[in-house]
Amino acid sequence: MKISRNAMLFTILVQLLLATFAAGQIRREVNFPDILGYKTLKCDFHMHTVFSDGTVWPTVRVDEAWREGLDVISITDHIEYQPHKQDVPTNFNRSYEIARPGAREKNILLIKGAEITRETPPGHFNVLYLEDIDPLDTEDLIDAAKAADAQKAFIFWNHPGWKPEHKGWFDIHTQLYENKLMHGIEVANGGSYYREAHQWALEKNLTMMGNSDIHQPALERQTTTENHRTMTLVFARERTAEAVKEALTEGRTAVWFQNQLIGRSRYLEAIFRESIEIGKPHHRARSAIWVTIRNHSAVDVEMDRTGSQGPAKLALPANATTLLKCGTEEGAEQLKLSYVVRNFLIAPDKGLPVDLTIDLR
Amino acid sequence: MKISRNAMLFTILVQLLLATFAAGQIRREVNFPDILGYKTLKCDFHMHTVFSDGTVWPTVRVDEAWREGLDVISITDHIEYQPHKQDVPTNFNRSYEIARPGAREKNILLIKGAEITRETPPGHFNVLYLEDIDPLDTEDLIDAAKAADAQKAFIFWNHPGWKPEHKGWFDIHTQLYENKLMHGIEVANGGSYYREAHQWALEKNLTMMGNSDIHQPALERQTTTENHRTMTLVFARERTAEAVKEALTEGRTAVWFQNQLIGRSRYLEAIFRESIEIGKPHHRARSAIWVTIRNHSAVDVEMDRTGSQGPAKLALPANATTLLKCGTEEGAEQLKLSYVVRNFLIAPDKGLPVDLTIDLR
Amino acid sequence: MKISRNAMLFTILVQLLLATFAAGQIRREVNFPDILGYKTLKCDFHMHTVFSDGTVWPTVRVDEAWREGLDVISITDHIEYQPHKQDVPTNFNRSYEIARPGAREKNILLIKGAEITRETPPGHFNVLYLEDIDPLDTEDLIDAAKAADAQKAFIFWNHPGWKPEHKGWFDIHTQLYENKLMHGIEVANGGSYYREAHQWALEKNLTMMGNSDIHQPALERQTTTENHRTMTLVFARERTAEAVKEALTEGRTAVWFQNQLIGRSRYLEAIFRESIEIGKPHHRARSAIWVTIRNHSAVDVEMDRTGSQGPAKLALPANATTLLKCGTEEGAEQLKLSYVVRNFLIAPDKGLPVDLTIDLR
Amino acid sequence: MKISRNAMLFTILVQLLLATFAAGQIRREVNFPDILGYKTLKCDFHMHTVFSDGTVWPTVRVDEAWREGLDVISITDHIEYQPHKQDVPTNFNRSYEIARPGAREKNILLIKGAEITRETPPGHFNVLYLEDIDPLDTEDLIDAAKAADAQKAFIFWNHPGWKPEHKGWFDIHTQLYENKLMHGIEVANGGSYYREAHQWALEKNLTMMGNSDIHQPALERQTTTENHRTMTLVFARERTAEAVKEALTEGRTAVWFQNQLIGRSRYLEAIFRESIEIGKPHHRARSAIWVTIRNHSAVDVEMDRTGSQGPAKLALPANATTLLKCGTEEGAEQLKLSYVVRNFLIAPDKGLPVDLTIDLR
Repeated sequence: MKISRNAMLFTILVQLLLATFAAGQIRREVNFPDILGYKTLKCDFHMHTVFSDGTVWPTVRVDEAWREGLDVISITDHIEYQPHKQDVPTNFNRSYEIARPGAREKNILLIKGAEITRETPPGHFNVLYLEDIDPLDTEDLIDAAKAADAQKAFIFWNHPGWKPEHKGWFDIHTQLYENKLMHGIEVANGGSYYREAHQWALEKNLTMMGNSDIHQPALERQTTTENHRTMTLVFARERTAEAVKEALTEGRTAVWFQNQLIGRSRYLEAIFRESIEIGKPHHRARSAIWVTIRNHSAVDVEMDRTGSQGPAKLALPANATTLLKCGTEEGAEQLKLSYVVRNFLIAPDKGLPVDLTIDLR
Repeated sequence: MKISRNAMLFTILVQLLLATFAAGQIRREVNFPDILGYKTLKCDFHMHTVFSDGTVWPTVRVDEAWREGLDVISITDHIEYQPHKQDVPTNFNRSYEIARPGAREKNILLIKGAEITRETPPGHFNVLYLEDIDPLDTEDLIDAAKAADAQKAFIFWNHPGWKPEHKGWFDIHTQLYENKLMHGIEVANGGSYYREAHQWALEKNLTMMGNSDIHQPALERQTTTENHRTMTLVFARERTAEAVKEALTEGRTAVWFQNQLIGRSRYLEAIFRESIEIGKPHHRARSAIWVTIRNHSAVDVEMDRTGSQGPAKLALPANATTLLKCGTEEGAEQLKLSYVVRNFLIAPDKGLPVDLTIDLR
Repeated sequence: MKISRNAMLFTILVQLLLATFAAGQIRREVNFPDILGYKTLKCDFHMHTVFSDGTVWPTVRVDEAWREGLDVISITDHIEYQPHKQDVPTNFNRSYEIARPGAREKNILLIKGAEITRETPPGHFNVLYLEDIDPLDTEDLIDAAKAADAQKAFIFWNHPGWKPEHKGWFDIHTQLYENKLMHGIEVANGGSYYREAHQWALEKNLTMMGNSDIHQPALERQTTTENHRTMTLVFARERTAEAVKEALTEGRTAVWFQNQLIGRSRYLEAIFRESIEIGKPHHRARSAIWVTIRNHSAVDVEMDRTGSQGPAKLALPANATTLLKCGTEEGAEQLKLSYVVRNFLIAPDKGLPVDLTIDLR
Repeated sequence: MKISRNAMLFTILVQLLLATFAAGQIRREVNFPDILGYKTLKCDFHMHTVFSDGTVWPTVRVDEAWREGLDVISITDHIEYQPHKQDVPTNFNRSYEIARPGAREKNILLIKGAEITRETPPGHFNVLYLEDIDPLDTEDLIDAAKAADAQKAFIFWNHPGWKPEHKGWFDIHTQLYENKLMHGIEVANGGSYYREAHQWALEKNLTMMGNSDIHQPALERQTTTENHRTMTLVFARERTAEAVKEALTEGRTAVWFQNQLIGRSRYLEAIFRESIEIGKPHHRARSAIWVTIRNHSAVDVEMDRTGSQGPAKLALPANATTLLKCGTEEGAEQLKLSYVVRNFLIAPDKGLPVDLTIDLR
């Protein structure tokens, strides 16, 4: 009995489709409010596949993005570092091409990108919104950046504090920056935060980026509040790749890193305001009032008192309601509690100052 | 060195207050949509404390209610069954009095109630909205019900299938029912569902109740989707004890039991409609469309296809987004998928029929 | 400034090594007792990588095996089904070669294998203990099996109930079986159990296999008691590839599938006996005794009473201690409770009968 | 129809028994090795019920102890602080009496105890192994301690750093200590560690105690490695109340507090040695070896390198296996890695020094 190989292909395809479908069906949304008239999109612009030094097929990155509530991803395989090329011949544009059909089906915006990879300094640079990656495969870094720029790409410096012994802002960075060949900078990458990069972003008006740089398959425990994926929140006019590019160019981002939000104060202030819902006091006794505070966001908000009223420390866990008891004076119409949000960083070591206003009428 | 005992009291009180506060701070809201112009309140009208055969101080029931996202509770200690009375002398009104201050602070509506406790048949009956429980301590059951009625109480039959060998609707139940001394009936209690009670509630227009009947401390694992507290959803004009009473009297309830919703179809249909958000198709290829369905409720919705289109089974997990791929015809303006929601019970063994309408234009 | 690409390679390699190391460090052991003088090895003989239709690099399968407490794996990429071959040119022996160094480092026994893939019937067959996979790439199935046999391979039939419309034992299976070209059969594969295969294994003395057939990255939630990887327990003289082969050849296996153990009664009985530790009664009152039962295994043991004493149902959760109260007679020296272990299947629908003996002296 | 109240009691009792049984069945053992010929018992000697300022019935403390893997508990209600006495009339011996039957059934050793409660200073003192608590109800603290001593009780100072403004070792403590009326001291209580108490315990040879001081119901999340109950490990000749008393008197204890072990070095060293199992190297390549290290205990062991070999930091998670890669020299017969266990405290801020010896032959 001889059985043709070809006949079985359809059967296997159907089974695979079903299995993939089953596995990928459930998506947990990450709660961040839209702010200032913009949509808040959850983005990861730095990840790898077997087409450079990652260990997953490109479709896995889309499945993970769906499952973890991401809106936008860019697969950014190394151009120059191709350790699997013996088995997976170099083909810069393939990870995007392979991931694209699934991204469309799962409504993940997929941005074509790549990582320009050089010894540190100058280090690595991600390039987003490419049409063709091949022209970036050049010997000279500046040539590669220019090739990207010719495609109107968005370029950012990756993990600028990666190698402590060689870290710093060098002439090559000034050259890129002054030639408008570096538009953003990672202030966080995976499990690392770069204090200097945070400072540089503020001083030089670079767009703040935070990404996973994931090489292995994503673990599910990395989707908890305590241990989430490092990501970039992008405040975009709409949920399109073009609007994301505009937002990146204009610096409308914040970074979510290990339960901290890092960003410019106007964005963090708006996120705080839209996330935190203060009830009306539901009970009064003697000179105290009781009020609920609901945190609609995915961040555990941690605050230290800077004023004279309210508890010294106030924690507002993510997606939960907190009970606040607070002293008050006879006849007051309003209670204003002044705090600094310790894990909303508007500069290195500098939390966001906020007021909690409780209406007593 | 002699040290006064009295001086230390304030210190201990302060410590206790802090500890209690710390433990009770976080509340996880249970997501059910408001429907039909009513607020959907999460209620548990059946629970015990050390004042009958429970094992917790009344304040614990308030702390648990806060933590688990309940809006309304009634502590319903047995009147006639007082196994702790050697150590906790009988005092019917005390569990309410002790729980009240904390309930006010935590914004839990606390309904004064009690459980009239007789051998089965006739069984046990909960009485809500009492002013004084003492008059219900009578030998004759009907006298107790009349004493409750004199206080305009709401009376319901508890766990009507509790003792399989004696279960059934007896003359005494008819007597109570016809004299308007029985207004509701538990169709679920703790881990049990009572099929006959469900049927009787529909036939006799009794308000459907579902409660925990908790005696021990609540375990945290009972707050997951899979293993939540059995509770009554009450559709009330506003979040007040009076509005809850009106809703109970008018039968505006549903029961949440082991990831099933049990209730009249008009309420379950409204909950479904307000919980399930169907996106616009975000992708089309060949003759298929892809669309997301978000379930904003706390119930894992499980559906079986009754029409000709869509997957045979469709699961919409709680607080998550599901991806649906569906075949469609050229030029169709709308896709209507007919399903029955297996775990929304509008009668015993009868799920709620629903249509999922997808706009293709 | 020009920077050489080559200089950076060492740096990247060091970082990768650190990251891989960090991610792969922790292993949770799966608790099954050694029995009958054999070591109980946890094995998965069916899985895929990018070298056929899987979505991970071969090293990922080793990392997962380490993390999930497996002792032995075989990567069994399809020979005839190579959907990625445009990007990953066919090379049958490569997934083994790539996985081998990590397997050695992590002390995972890696068996070279492959999946012979034909339309159903006859279906798919896994081949283990190959030296070279290339000779199996033949048009005729029997030729492939003979090529495997020439390498003294172990051959088993995969997911025999996969396609319901075509399932069954056909002439081709008789031909393979009678020519000693089929030594085992999957009674479970991923989320499926095959009742007929279970029966055939018993009747024809085929080795019972249970494997994951995983194509995607392993999810962490699949490592819980409720939702573990489907695997084969092999009872081997020692922890070596050769001893595993001997055990497979002699049929010394059991299958762990969805919290059920499937296997011959002598093995299941031994696992039960070595897993369940019954204490001495620690308390007596009136005519009852209290005793603890500890389950050292990873299976939640579920038992139904077949005798006259003990609770009707007895659950012994995995890695936990259960309290048993039991009536007893005056002066008895021993209490023997007869049960059937519902989830230890010695044949389709047939649980393992056991006695729990409690020493009362 | 009149129905007797009395007839229903048996029914309710049966139901309660079943429910209690169901809830209390599963016990998760806490893994600590027996050491130095002693049994390692998990103990909590400080907890409250409704008979002082706790919020649970005494039986709950036994159920929690069973569930959480404790061997020994003492309910230590305040003698002088009786905030519930209006509802629960003072009766010092009742919490023990009520808890005793369940403790026998669940094989929990229940020690009769109480808390002598004074303003700080001198503070609170727990007294264990009482026969009658009534004689301790005296105005003068020394009189109470003497009444305890007359019953050969074991007395220890509770939470000595509780009130920061009044903390310290005062004359009254010297008086108790010199008269042998204070035998132990809590170095940890609930969420607090007392550095000075740790130092005093070492200097004055006081038995180190660590307890929960729990007032509310125990939450399940407090049974994880990260967030376990604060407890005292007692190294006793056997699992009896008498042997525990002997061990307490001789200072054979250690404290488990927030994933730290606190105790004398001879005990911590023995726990480390019996918990950590180092394999033989399973792989060598170039000048490196790979070896597994299994941690059989419930503590995540965290180590810092003090020698020249091995990784700078080495984490050995609880109940897990860790992979260690280590450089080695040609021809060496043994590899000795010197570390300090950061979370095994043999004095304030002083970790336990250990050597990991790897046999290379």
